[in-house]
Amino acid sequence: MDKIVALCKRRGFIYPGSEIYGGLGGTWDYGPLGTELKRNIKNEWWKEMVQKREDMVGVDAAIMMNPKVWEASGHVEAFTDPLVECKICHKRFRADQIEGPEGKDGLEKCSDGTFKHEFTEERKFNLLVKAYLGVLEDRQSEVYLRGEITQGVHVNFKNVLDSTRVKIPFGIAQIGKAFRNEITPGNFTFRSREFEQMENQFFVKPEKQEGEKWFEYWKKVRMDWYLNLGIKKENLRFRDHRDDERAHYAKAATDIEYHAPFGWSEFEGIHNRGDWDLSRHEEYSGQTMKYRDPDSSEEFLPWVIETSGGVDRAALFFLIDAYSEENGRVLLKLHPKLTPVKVAVFPLLANKPKLVKEAKEIYEDLKKDFMAIFDDRGNIGGRYASQDEAGTPFCITVDFQSLKDKDVTVRDRDTTKQVRVKIVDLAKYLSGKIK
Amino acid sequence: MDKIVALCKRRGFIYPGSEIYGGLGGTWDYGPLGTELKRNIKNEWWKEMVQKREDMVGVDAAIMMNPKVWEASGHVEAFTDPLVECKICHKRFRADQIEGPEGKDGLEKCSDGTFKHEFTEERKFNLLVKAYLGVLEDRQSEVYLRGEITQGVHVNFKNVLDSTRVKIPFGIAQIGKAFRNEITPGNFTFRSREFEQMENQFFVKPEKQEGEKWFEYWKKVRMDWYLNLGIKKENLRFRDHRDDERAHYAKAATDIEYHAPFGWSEFEGIHNRGDWDLSRHEEYSGQTMKYRDPDSSEEFLPWVIETSGGVDRAALFFLIDAYSEENGRVLLKLHPKLTPVKVAVFPLLANKPKLVKEAKEIYEDLKKDFMAIFDDRGNIGGRYASQDEAGTPFCITVDFQSLKDKDVTVRDRDTTKQVRVKIVDLAKYLSGKIK
Repeated sequence: MDKIVALCKRRGFIYPGSEIYGGLGGTWDYGPLGTELKRNIKNEWWKEMVQKREDMVGVDAAIMMNPKVWEASGHVEAFTDPLVECKICHKRFRADQIEGPEGKDGLEKCSDGTFKHEFTEERKFNLLVKAYLGVLEDRQSEVYLRGEITQGVHVNFKNVLDSTRVKIPFGIAQIGKAFRNEITPGNFTFRSREFEQMENQFFVKPEKQEGEKWFEYWKKVRMDWYLNLGIKKENLRFRDHRDDERAHYAKAATDIEYHAPFGWSEFEGIHNRGDWDLSRHEEYSGQTMKYRDPDSSEEFLPWVIETSGGVDRAALFFLIDAYSEENGRVLLKLHPKLTPVKVAVFPLLANKPKLVKEAKEIYEDLKKDFMAIFDDRGNIGGRYASQDEAGTPFCITVDFQSLKDKDVTVRDRDTTKQVRVKIVDLAKYLSGKIK
Repeated sequence: MDKIVALCKRRGFIYPGSEIYGGLGGTWDYGPLGTELKRNIKNEWWKEMVQKREDMVGVDAAIMMNPKVWEASGHVEAFTDPLVECKICHKRFRADQIEGPEGKDGLEKCSDGTFKHEFTEERKFNLLVKAYLGVLEDRQSEVYLRGEITQGVHVNFKNVLDSTRVKIPFGIAQIGKAFRNEITPGNFTFRSREFEQMENQFFVKPEKQEGEKWFEYWKKVRMDWYLNLGIKKENLRFRDHRDDERAHYAKAATDIEYHAPFGWSEFEGIHNRGDWDLSRHEEYSGQTMKYRDPDSSEEFLPWVIETSGGVDRAALFFLIDAYSEENGRVLLKLHPKLTPVKVAVFPLLANKPKLVKEAKEIYEDLKKDFMAIFDDRGNIGGRYASQDEAGTPFCITVDFQSLKDKDVTVRDRDTTKQVRVKIVDLAKYLSGKIK
């Protein structure tokens, strides 16, 4: 894990948030490579979940919502961790983490330098982040930053019905940031206070059998998504929630877990939310949330099967799973669809203007279609090593033969094998390999 | 303008935020079509500003930053509007809007039902949105939501230098949300409390001539971007800031303005920020922010030319500019790169299984590469009209001749002209037209 964190910093995947000011706990900034990785994850998700499907549309709701949304959703009441506070240093800890040797090891020291905290009784601490908005100086202006992006879909359920031609079963997809006042952010970007979610709220007939059918369907689709993007099968598993750990809204819940260095960890949740959200919003807003079946004219509140994944967690687990060391080489075996850079172009020697010119032309041409980089610094071995670490799947070298034959060497990241490809065929060759 | 707002709601471009709960002033939710439009704007921007350029990299920093960032940036001190508060109803107003007939018209009524407010003295009101974060119950946990995405780049300037091979002149691009406690959000999505920015911080040698050269360069590049994406030339202009309106950080500032129904309005700002940000962060963090020239080994704080555009404003102005009424037709003449849907596929008649089957196959094939929709409801004229309103540039109709000749009708949104295209050539035909 230390190697991943160091690589992320050194190569510009992920930096600690506000680092020059000593950071801000639980926030992270993505550098040039990390930004591209995250973009690719989100774009791939959108392509598979929205563009390629007939039964999905997207929305993009605001982070700030009317506070009543969170009363209706149950988050104001139920979205809490039991906490204790130390009477000496006033630090707060999750009540379930102060007991036992493992917990104690993870605790921060008290202001007296020891671990001998003097704890208060347990009390509930709401994870919603409060913000202050508006022009009135009273309670009206207290809002919450959304603790999940989910509700942005549910409050717009009728708007989507009225402005599109969706028919049940259909889903509404969304990608966006959410915030939680986590007591113990940690494990690098795994548990942070600001994070991005990618979710599908899929509306089905309110029948047990339909709910179960689509729950199983989406479990498979989402697991396959990670497998198809190259996560090793042995590092993925489903874990059904026990009755006592299911969220307040869930009829059934399964996590897709990844075998991280810090243990099996939630990657994505698949939940049968029933009609929890729509019925609560109906109750709290006084507006009907019912769907009218166009064939039977029957009106009902649909059930929702949700798939809720974390963009930051996906980025982290893709990086961990791709990290390899082979014969002294460090390489990121990311799926070519996800790699920040698709192709690097090198002149064999930097002091031969003809090679540089030809390589530059190839680079200029390829970067219209691919995230590409040009590099003429140092020896070819060093340039390969640098790209291996960044995950770049293909390196193109222009050598003296290229000037005669108009072909170049394309070197594969994983096999290190090299093939000659005609310059005019490069774009097509790379497109084929990346698909 | 009313027509735009109504179309946005009716067709699922933009809904009021938290609408079922009476809204939340200054927030907006994007529906299925609006979400795709915004995605396309952002992806086009990223492609032109990052992918296709050798001198740009991206970052994606957190919305929550250490509060010291905003002291250093000058926002805690200077990011203020002068406000007055009514002693009767406790509503607050911008001091510059309470005088004169125009201002009075725009004011909300007092609690006594009249416009006779009794105002306090003017005082400064900071636009940064406060949030509360963390496990300590004192002032430490007060943070600001970022009022601009800019600082996420500047605090990471050294991180980017250390983890990439950028050389001055180079830029760092970012897209992300920012928040401002606007006193008077309004003009639909134009002035809102939550909004998305797309920015380039471009670092150049700290010399007057370099600053001016790149300032002019980026003015042209950014203006061309809007022109190339189809905004009418007569609706765009530059407006240089007067000395007394320039932001605290700016050496020079120009707005690209759009001729909106509510007047000429800022679309994007181009600013010469000098070394304001880096020098302040150097001072406040105690860390060096200097760039070391690899050739001369000279160390200096670079100057920054910034281009700062609003994603929501771009979406709004693209919509306004594209809105047309021709012979009773309502159509959105959006650039094909920006349209939510690229192609709609229709069987001529819905009750002919062979037509439906062929049209479905074409649709299934095209949607691997394009945002596409299938529609078999109502007559062809109605389906065309529906797509015109959504901006869809191409409609494909499968008719009886298609079954024999394997070609289809492709109808152009703007000219309404129809051409026959072979089914096997459709993807290539559309790609060519969309580029």
